[in-house]
Amino acid sequence: MNLSDIAALAQPGDRKVLLLVLDGLGGLPAALGGRTELETARTPNLDALVGLGGCGLHTPVASGITPGSGPGHLSLFGYDPLRYQIGRGVLSALGIGFDLRPGDIAVRGNLCTVDSNGVVIDRRAGRISTEEARPVCDLLSRIQVPGAEALVEQVKEHRFLLVLRPNASSTADVMDTDTGLTGVPPRPIAARSEAAMPAADAARDWVERAAHVLGGQTPANMVLLRGFGSLPEWPRFPEVFQMRSLAIAAYPMYLGVARLVGMEAVQVEDSLEALAEELERQADDYDFFFLHVKGTDKAGEDGDFDRKVSVIESVDAVVPRLVDAVGGVTLVTGDHSTPATMASHSWHPVPFLLSGGPARASAGASFGESECARGSLGHVKGWELLPLAAARAGRLAKYGA
Amino acid sequence: MNLSDIAALAQPGDRKVLLLVLDGLGGLPAALGGRTELETARTPNLDALVGLGGCGLHTPVASGITPGSGPGHLSLFGYDPLRYQIGRGVLSALGIGFDLRPGDIAVRGNLCTVDSNGVVIDRRAGRISTEEARPVCDLLSRIQVPGAEALVEQVKEHRFLLVLRPNASSTADVMDTDTGLTGVPPRPIAARSEAAMPAADAARDWVERAAHVLGGQTPANMVLLRGFGSLPEWPRFPEVFQMRSLAIAAYPMYLGVARLVGMEAVQVEDSLEALAEELERQADDYDFFFLHVKGTDKAGEDGDFDRKVSVIESVDAVVPRLVDAVGGVTLVTGDHSTPATMASHSWHPVPFLLSGGPARASAGASFGESECARGSLGHVKGWELLPLAAARAGRLAKYGA
Repeated sequence: MNLSDIAALAQPGDRKVLLLVLDGLGGLPAALGGRTELETARTPNLDALVGLGGCGLHTPVASGITPGSGPGHLSLFGYDPLRYQIGRGVLSALGIGFDLRPGDIAVRGNLCTVDSNGVVIDRRAGRISTEEARPVCDLLSRIQVPGAEALVEQVKEHRFLLVLRPNASSTADVMDTDTGLTGVPPRPIAARSEAAMPAADAARDWVERAAHVLGGQTPANMVLLRGFGSLPEWPRFPEVFQMRSLAIAAYPMYLGVARLVGMEAVQVEDSLEALAEELERQADDYDFFFLHVKGTDKAGEDGDFDRKVSVIESVDAVVPRLVDAVGGVTLVTGDHSTPATMASHSWHPVPFLLSGGPARASAGASFGESECARGSLGHVKGWELLPLAAARAGRLAKYGA
Repeated sequence: MNLSDIAALAQPGDRKVLLLVLDGLGGLPAALGGRTELETARTPNLDALVGLGGCGLHTPVASGITPGSGPGHLSLFGYDPLRYQIGRGVLSALGIGFDLRPGDIAVRGNLCTVDSNGVVIDRRAGRISTEEARPVCDLLSRIQVPGAEALVEQVKEHRFLLVLRPNASSTADVMDTDTGLTGVPPRPIAARSEAAMPAADAARDWVERAAHVLGGQTPANMVLLRGFGSLPEWPRFPEVFQMRSLAIAAYPMYLGVARLVGMEAVQVEDSLEALAEELERQADDYDFFFLHVKGTDKAGEDGDFDRKVSVIESVDAVVPRLVDAVGGVTLVTGDHSTPATMASHSWHPVPFLLSGGPARASAGASFGESECARGSLGHVKGWELLPLAAARAGRLAKYGA
């Protein structure tokens, strides 16, 4: 169902909604036939929630597709991530907490090395360290161009963010200068359409000055740009679902994606205590809360099965406090799987539970991948979860007579 | 799959198909962890059918969406209800059994109260009784306008149906006069496109005369119109599936939706005996039969758990007779859930069973929400069921070589 169809049915409801995301929650058994991280963890509180409302599996993007954090979270917010795509430049800006404004053109930049003929010989400037790159980015940040404000933020190692704020309105339909190849010069800046000329002109001027400023530096004597993008004009979450909505997270990326769909967002320290305290402080003033826990994904990415188990158990311990603070419908899941055995994001469907509101119960169930695979809520797409939670909260009117 | 894709595969088959709809069949446990209405009912005959063919859950519209009767039935007929939308005026006409013809413009009307300046002060004329409204609707039904035949049918309380049958062909793209607000006058009639001018002109004349005729009446001294619509031009069910198709029901709404997709339809008394007798009488002359049982939904809407159980048991008792009469593939399900605990339609997926034709069996299963959640036929969209039944009946050819 389209977000506009959902918006037409949304109504104020009597229950609030808590979306608790354990980043990278889904996992795999350490040995074939064994238990996953979630199945290994002792989770009496999450198990009780399953019993009250049911569980299932969700596919964040599509079968076999490993989601990044952006698409994974968009899906959980009810946005089909294949339909709502974020440009890499914008994602880069969100990831470092840059306050991107409507009309800004965000671009992902690489420091690179060119030879005396301007041919790219290293696309990452010898994987320059973050320390070494700092003064280089400082030089770039002083560049001024006519027709636009130019802002530069260092990201990590060879990566930086360029934001152009053109005086004249412009689309971001500008070609990458990064060809992805060495042995050829960077592609000259070119607008793909008339409407992108202001951004393209400013970018061309900026690249020329960058080449001049970095000339003689080593190893970073040039820049490559890719992923020109601007803030998308999407339906806004608080209006689609008619819920005053707050994101609480420690990391800029997640706050950024939440802001992108129109939620308010507050940054807290990276601890469960900080999440819980902030939730309790804000509980009366919003209808929807998105809480983000990073530790599960970190442990998964580190390949640390036991630590992922332990993070899940810590979250379980604080769950009753979170549920009580909101007192409505609770949706607990992940934005994707991050099996410790793979030490990376993966495509495996993600377990979810939903409790609160009118539901068929699942007595005796415990929260884990195997039980969720035959759970009462079935196997759904990630973006089908939020409408289901909204229905449980009494927030969606009947469709048709 | 699109209906046109299905139509391309449809072929005459050797088995007939019976679609038995228990309106609002899906339910919820009376107490958490308990049994639903269907799980409480003793249904040896339905259980036996599950054993012969399998069961599952279907979502009529989309996750979290509560279907009205129109979308719920369209879905069961194989029409994705988000793609095939019925205007409110047309639904209103179907609901009272009005013989709507191609080219007719159907509009939902309210009797309302305006003050001496023409400002709406009550959108429902003080919720006028059906009795009191009758002579008012009689006055309206006598109004004649140039350019169209104007037909008025009383519906209930303040509601009536206006059907305009314009002399010149016209679309129904006319704005509502009902703003949904009090304190402002009705919106003047306006066509949204040139093609809707004949309908708009007739409607404008009709509203003027209605204001004149009702002037001085109390409390109903004016009308509000909304939901201008005409019969949609959809693929016709009997042609898509190549089945001579008959609907048997007691209530006009369900006969109307069946006629809307091109089925023939016969109205019977509101009893299982009447349904069964009519089916037996017509069994030789059609390939497809849609039988509608209203009692389950009524009991659910009344919040009467025990009565819903009892209606289900009565249906179970007559099932062998219905199955024998058709002697082919049987699909038993609901158009949506109506849990007695909610006393309303709900978004919960609906149990279905399919028996007859080549199938993987589900020995020992009984027909209920929990078993269906892990049933052999899985969790599907409502409009996926009819193709499945048609396949079982040998009526869909291979797709591609």
